[in-house]
Formats: sequence, C-alpha cells, structure tokens
Amino acid sequence: MHGLMMDQPLLISGLIRHADRHHAQTEIVSKTVEGSVHRYTYRQAHARVRRLANALKRLGVGMHDRVATLAWNGFRHFEIYYAVAGSGAVIHTINPRLFADQIAYIANHAEDKVVFYDTTFAALIEKLKPQLNSVRHFIALNDEYERLLDKETDQLEWPSFDENTAACLCYTSGTTGNPKGALYSHRSTMIHAYAAALPDTLNLSAREVVLPVVPMFHVNAWSLPYSCTMTGAKMVFPGPHLDGKSLHQLFESEGVTMSAGVPTVWLGLLNYMKENRLRFSTLKNVVIGGSACPPAMIRAFQDDFGVQVLHAWGMTEMSPLGTTGTFKARQANLQKAEREALQAKQGRAVFGVDLRIVDENGRELPWDGKAFGDLQVRGPWVIKSYFKGEGGDPLKDGWFPTGDVCTIDPEGYIQVTDRSKDVIKSGGEWISSIDLENIAIAHPAIAEAAVIGVRHPKWDERPIVVAVKKPGQDVTRDELLRFYEGKIAKWWMPDDVVFVNELPHTATGKLSKLTLRQQFKDYRLDQK
Amino acid sequence: MHGLMMDQPLLISGLIRHADRHHAQTEIVSKTVEGSVHRYTYRQAHARVRRLANALKRLGVGMHDRVATLAWNGFRHFEIYYAVAGSGAVIHTINPRLFADQIAYIANHAEDKVVFYDTTFAALIEKLKPQLNSVRHFIALNDEYERLLDKETDQLEWPSFDENTAACLCYTSGTTGNPKGALYSHRSTMIHAYAAALPDTLNLSAREVVLPVVPMFHVNAWSLPYSCTMTGAKMVFPGPHLDGKSLHQLFESEGVTMSAGVPTVWLGLLNYMKENRLRFSTLKNVVIGGSACPPAMIRAFQDDFGVQVLHAWGMTEMSPLGTTGTFKARQANLQKAEREALQAKQGRAVFGVDLRIVDENGRELPWDGKAFGDLQVRGPWVIKSYFKGEGGDPLKDGWFPTGDVCTIDPEGYIQVTDRSKDVIKSGGEWISSIDLENIAIAHPAIAEAAVIGVRHPKWDERPIVVAVKKPGQDVTRDELLRFYEGKIAKWWMPDDVVFVNELPHTATGKLSKLTLRQQFKDYRLDQK
Repeated sequence: MHGLMMDQPLLISGLIRHADRHHAQTEIVSKTVEGSVHRYTYRQAHARVRRLANALKRLGVGMHDRVATLAWNGFRHFEIYYAVAGSGAVIHTINPRLFADQIAYIANHAEDKVVFYDTTFAALIEKLKPQLNSVRHFIALNDEYERLLDKETDQLEWPSFDENTAACLCYTSGTTGNPKGALYSHRSTMIHAYAAALPDTLNLSAREVVLPVVPMFHVNAWSLPYSCTMTGAKMVFPGPHLDGKSLHQLFESEGVTMSAGVPTVWLGLLNYMKENRLRFSTLKNVVIGGSACPPAMIRAFQDDFGVQVLHAWGMTEMSPLGTTGTFKARQANLQKAEREALQAKQGRAVFGVDLRIVDENGRELPWDGKAFGDLQVRGPWVIKSYFKGEGGDPLKDGWFPTGDVCTIDPEGYIQVTDRSKDVIKSGGEWISSIDLENIAIAHPAIAEAAVIGVRHPKWDERPIVVAVKKPGQDVTRDELLRFYEGKIAKWWMPDDVVFVNELPHTATGKLSKLTLRQQFKDYRLDQK
Repeated sequence: MHGLMMDQPLLISGLIRHADRHHAQTEIVSKTVEGSVHRYTYRQAHARVRRLANALKRLGVGMHDRVATLAWNGFRHFEIYYAVAGSGAVIHTINPRLFADQIAYIANHAEDKVVFYDTTFAALIEKLKPQLNSVRHFIALNDEYERLLDKETDQLEWPSFDENTAACLCYTSGTTGNPKGALYSHRSTMIHAYAAALPDTLNLSAREVVLPVVPMFHVNAWSLPYSCTMTGAKMVFPGPHLDGKSLHQLFESEGVTMSAGVPTVWLGLLNYMKENRLRFSTLKNVVIGGSACPPAMIRAFQDDFGVQVLHAWGMTEMSPLGTTGTFKARQANLQKAEREALQAKQGRAVFGVDLRIVDENGRELPWDGKAFGDLQVRGPWVIKSYFKGEGGDPLKDGWFPTGDVCTIDPEGYIQVTDRSKDVIKSGGEWISSIDLENIAIAHPAIAEAAVIGVRHPKWDERPIVVAVKKPGQDVTRDELLRFYEGKIAKWWMPDDVVFVNELPHTATGKLSKLTLRQQFKDYRLDQK
C-alpha cells in the first residue's frame, strides 16, 4: 500500500523554478573574467537558463548527452548547470587545473558533445581541439555565448523524468591511474542539496549572502549552486579572482555572510587581511574543506577576525559532503581549547551519510577516538560504481571505502589521520603521517611539510619529514625533531628530517605524496 | 542513463538508526502522564523501538496494517512512531480531542488492528471498545506496554522496502462531513523532514533542545519527532502538562532552546510568565502555527521575553508544513514595525512546496500583496487524494486547494485573509473575516471575536462581529464599530456587533464558524 502523496520527482529544474517564483528579486552577482561585476536576479537567471535550454536543443543535445564546462564560478556557468541538467542532459564539469592530457582523456571518456569554456582557457582549448573527437561545439563564455542565447526565446516547460536520471559527471583528480567519473543523479543531487543546507551542514537560508570560493568545476562547489538556489541565498561568484585583495573587496561590496573554500585560498586571504590591517564587516562563517584545516587557521579566523570556522570533509565520490564539525547542544559549554580541538577534527556525519572505520580484515572498529582504521561510507549521494564501470566494483560489503584512515570519537566526530596509502606501517602498527605533518607545520620556521614512510630493514617503514622552511627562517634537523618531543608517542618519532626548496603538488593543489615517495624511493635510513 | 549512486530508499527507520549511531548519548526527556520525568538516550530509545517492532510482529501486525495511538507527547509514543513505520506498518495517530463518535468512525475507517493509549484515555477507550470492530489489541502505555517489550529482544534488522510505502495516517479534524485521512509515505515524510529542519523552516540541529508542544496525535507534531531525530536535537516531551507553570518548569530544567505550538497554549504560558514575573533562561525561538498568531503575541515574546517568533502555516493535507515567516537577507534592515508586519503574515514557501492564488475561475492572481484568492499548493509532501478515495479527486489542475484565501506579496509571503467558506462575499467583492476579527481582538475590552457573513437583501452577505468581552471590561456596539474607523475600507465596516458569553470551538480548539453560522442562520440585518 502506497502513501497517497503527489508524485513529484526530485529534479534539479525544480530548484531554479522555485527560486524564480519565491526568490524572484534575490541577486546573483558575478565578477567576470574581464573584471567587471555582473548582477541579476534569480528570475532573470531562470529566463536565460530557459533560453540556453532551447539553444542546447538546437545544438542537438539530447537526453543523457554530456555537456562539458571549463569555467570559473560565474553566472554563465550557473546557467549551464541548470539548462543542461534541467534538459535531461549531463553536465560534465572539467577541472582546468588538470594536465592537458588528463583533460583530453576525460573529455573523450565522457564523450562530451559540447564544451563551454571561459576565455581564460581559450589557448588550452585550441591546443586540445584536435584530440577531442566527440565534441561538436566549442562555445566561449563571452559574446559567442550571448549570441547563442539571443537566438532563443525563454518559452520552455521543463521536462519531467525519472529522478534517478544522470545529471552531473565529475572526475576524480586521479593521483594514481586515469581519472574516474562519479555520475550523480537528480535524486542524489537534490537529497544532497537538502542535507547541505541543514543548520549543522552549511546552514543556508535566504538570510545568507554566499560566496563560493570552492570551484564549480570540482564536485559542484560543494553543492552551493544547488543548495543556495534551494534556499534563496544571494550568491556572489568571484570568477578567477581568488587573491586576497579581490576576495576581500567582493566580501565587503556585496555584504557576504558566508564563504567556503580550501585552506590554500584562505591562507592568501588571511595574509592579505593582516598585512593591510583589514576587517570583515559582514562575514560570519567560513567553511573549510578539501584538505585538513590547520588549527592556526581556525584560530586566526575566529580570534583575530570574529569569523566562525566550520571544518568539513567529503570527496568526489560522495557529492561531496560527508561530515561537518558543528557542535552538539551539550558541547556548548566546552572550554576554548576543547572547542578548538573538536573543530580541528573533520566533523560528524551529515544526515544521509553513515560511516564506520574497519581494520585490515573489514571488522568494524570502536568509536573511542583512538582506534584508527579505513573509513567507509554509504548513503543516497555516495557512488555505487564509477562511470562506465572503470575500476570494477569499488564497494566492500555495500560500503564505499574512502581511502582515508580515521579515528571516530564517541560523539561520532571523525579525525582523518591519514590516507590509507600514506599511513606508515611500522612494526605492524600504524603511524599517522598527517599528525606528524601538523606538528612540523606548527613550528614557526616551517612553511610546509610532508611526512612519508621510507623502507626500514627492521620496522618495514619508518617516518621521515620532508620540509620547506619559511623565507628568512632557519631550523636544524635536530631542533625540529626536539620539537616533536612530548607531542607524540616515542615510537612515532620521525627518523630523519630532509629540507627541500619545494614540495610536489597535484593539479588540484594537494601535496603529492606519490611523487614524493618516488623521489625518496631509494632513500635508506640504514645508510645514514 | 541513470546516475550511479547507491540505491537507498528514504525510510523512516533510517532516522532512528542514524540517531543511534551518531547521536547515541543525546537525550529524549519526557514528562509522563503520572508527572515523573523519564530520561533516556537515542541509543536506548532505538533498542526499545526494536523490541517494540518485535512485539508488533508477535501481535500479528504485518506490512500496511494500521496501528493507532491515543497518546500525548512522550517517549512511548515516540517509540510507536518508529517501530510501526519502521516495520512497514502504518501509524495512525488519533486526536483524542475529537468526539467519541468521530474517533470510532476514524478507527473503523482506518481498520486499526492495535490501539496504544495513554491511561488518561482509559475511560474513553472502555466506552469505545464495543464500536471498534477491527481492533485486536488495546494496549495501555503503562506497565502493560512495558510487559510487551520485556518479552522481546532488541535483535532486529530494519526491513527495506519501496519508499512510497504508506507510513502514517492522519485524519483531518473535519469541520464539515466525516474526517478524511491523509496517508503519508516514507518518502514524503523524509523529504518533509529534511525541509522542516532547514534554517528557514524550523532550524533544527544537534545544538537545539526542542520541546514540541504541538501534539504528536496531530500531523506528526509538525515533523518534530522525525526532524529532531534526523538532526540529533535533544527532545523534551511535555506529556499532558501543557499549562504555563509546567511548561516553564520544563523549559528551564531541560534548557529548552526552541518550542512549537498553537497560539492558545502560548497565551496560557505568557500569562503565567507575566503574573509570576518569570524569564526564559535558554528559550530563543518559538514556532507558532495552527491558527493565525496575533501580532500582540509576537510582540510579547520578542519584546518582553527576548524570544524570537516564527509564524508558520500548513495543514494536515500537506504533512503539514507549507510556509514559514523567516526574513530574506535584504529584509535584515527593516524597521521594527515593518518586521512585525512581515512576521504577522504566514510566511513564504518552504522549498518543496509551490503555491499560488487563483480567482473563482481558476486563473492565477498576481503576487502584489493585495489581490486575494484561493490558495493552492503542490509538492512531494502534499496529498493527491484521501485515504480510500473519500471525497473523490481533490486536485484542481494538479494543485491541492487549501480552502484558505490569501494574498501573496512580491517576496512570496502569504497572508491568510480567510477560509474560502468564511470569506464574506458582499456585492461581488470579498471581505476578509479574519482581518475584521483581528481588529476586534485588538480592542482592549475584547477577549475573542468571530466575524461571519449574514444574509443581506441587497449585498448578498454583510459582515457582523460576534464578540466576547474580557471579564470586568466593557465596550458598546457603537464604540467597537468606531474602533474600526480608519483601519479598513468603508465598505468593509461590519453591519452589527453581537456580544455573547462564549464562542463555539471545534474539537481541536479552533473557532467553529460553521456552528456560529448555524446559530445566526435566521439573523436578518434588514430586521434590525
């Protein structure tokens, strides 16, 4: 016996239609590639989205066809999000920071029919064109795009279809092997958007002015283009202007209350703010994810600027939101140090996601904040397989293995201690490379540090620190090792420190330990 | 082409399972019928819910069977919510304030197999038993219930099934004709719970301590037993103790931050607070719905007690949440009077609900805050028909007609000006009975007032005020009519005032204009 409720599929077109009707006058503001400010309303956006949907039909884009973007956060990218998915086609956001060969691989693997690109990437597109066999139309997001819309009317009824229809395709950055595609459905995107907007997740409402620093070309900017539209938040898109000065100006001129991004961008902004003795007039909350947020950054935002930090964790394979670090009612009276320690963890599960840690034999480990194991997740916005079945069946007993190693405390807060492949296995026990890195970074003379396991005749692996000094600062190997004393168990003590001028990074700006391990593959501790 | 996301139906059992794992130590506190305080955690609740699910099997309750409750807000009622729906059966909450004949009709119509009842209703149950033909087990929520659980283990895996399966049955209070049943599904209940928890709806999170005054026996207490569990809010159940003193004590002893209920209850609480010069230590927000919240109540909470009021509107047929009165970003700087005027409206659509107003010919009317017409709604938690098809197809062009008459302003805020059947049609134009009532109530000598249309030879209908004076206060017919001057268009001026000692109310405490119109059916203005 079924309930007797209206049969209404959860479709992405429902978001922009709702915003048009119920948040008609709320603005979407974009700083363009050229540097000017573009400003319109959800109602005006929806009219242009419908024109674009008509243009896509004229270009021959049908249900399930992939339409790619190489674009910054901006109003035209926003329009493509809605026109493509609303039409039943699949929006494939490509990360322009990937190597050209990776982009070509991805676009061919996805069989993209149309590519929309910001003019920033015109040269890249010219170079790639000969390799992109499936693409019939390359459209620059300038007058060319405007001419496309000018030909169309805004007369359009959004089609209705199964909510399990594919809507968005996003490839992992792929530190090993070829990138693999996560294919989100309308259903998963919509349930994820509801969950993203919850008070304990990103806390989105029509009272907020949101500037997504996190790019729309990667995991849908953590759902913000969807969840802000859902809740009628004013959106502010920074385009490519992610330096401290540009961001601060936009925060102030548009009254931004909330923003979200990776630690690297915030570092640039905080430095700019301090150098110029600036304040935030309206900014209240920042969400920090993508990689672990250093405790010093949490303190800088909260203590120096009065901006509350929310630490979040997720991944491409989970749309991406998994956990956020909001408090529970009975944690309201924690002391400052305890609050900060809790905030430095990656947080607790958003409703819809379940998670667990398992040992090497797949047995669930206790939530005691000490045991650490492989983190597994499941939920309606977690993938069950990759696009075209690449990599086979990724699930283990119905759970998706994240590749992260974590502890979970009794309140459900996870702390990522390592990547499964980066954890250092010393004498049958695990040592967290990330814990050791955080200590090194806390040293005043250290700008960046990586800890990797190197082969050891007796212990299998032992940790070494590879570190970059801050300009004009100095520290010796022995001084840095002494800095670890009292902060870790003795057997976690790194066996060596190597100072370098630069550490290798991936296309998305993450530390590339894979490259680093290759660089140090012949390093022998016993030779020292 | 489908997305490649995990196939995970939206089931109510997922809520309690999540709370068990991720909010294990968060409390559910209940004031029992006997007056003691019961206290346990989500984890302990889930163990008992599983025992109850095993007990239901033993009682012969199968998929789709209806299990009724006649119960206050309390932990056992909470357990029944989850055990019944989690098992694939249907929880049928009966409003004990209905007349005994109506309850008998409803229970027979629903074909309830089991009835759980609070001991408060033992006499009522004894009286009803001979009429309830389908019921096999009557179980009192005292030791009898405990013995049922004692026989079972908490070993249980929740079954998985289609999310469109019926989960909850709630009958309308039925001012005309027999009550009709709204049959919610797991899907509708879950999407509604996500929407209910959003910052612009009830703003629920693990940081809140929530006391639902609104009864679990009527439209699922506005989703709170679901959406609080979803978000890990601490819950505080008041049982039958809804007087000002009991509520205030419970607010204070449990650190309640948010509550929700109908105006009548708040009136009692506010009077008690004022008489005893009390304050709220932790309460920050109250949600007021069920009937229009008088502006004076909004001011009393906000100005006298520092508690923010959220006005909400909905109905049984929509699970029930439709609109809430939260502000938009650009309304943040409104002056106090403008803010209060906006708060006195019923609010704007929760994401998932669309709404419109139409004229007598079904044509959509403009959102100008002036035009008023019949309010229609649609969305995944709005019914498409009543249980067993009673009353035929209620929809008009795919929209559900709410029976309310509203204006909608350009920002999407609705203001209920009347019930469709209560609106006074004078010379082809509509006069809002509610607007006229609000003015009468604002007079210092008036305790309660109803405005109804009475037959008029020239204008078809004209409004008259039927009013109850406050004890010890006096006002004459002409004084009250003068009080209207300057507040309304001249042709809205009531033609008469009749003072009575008491106004008729429905079983759920609402003013019964139907009864009032019957009382005044022979009243003739031309005879005056």
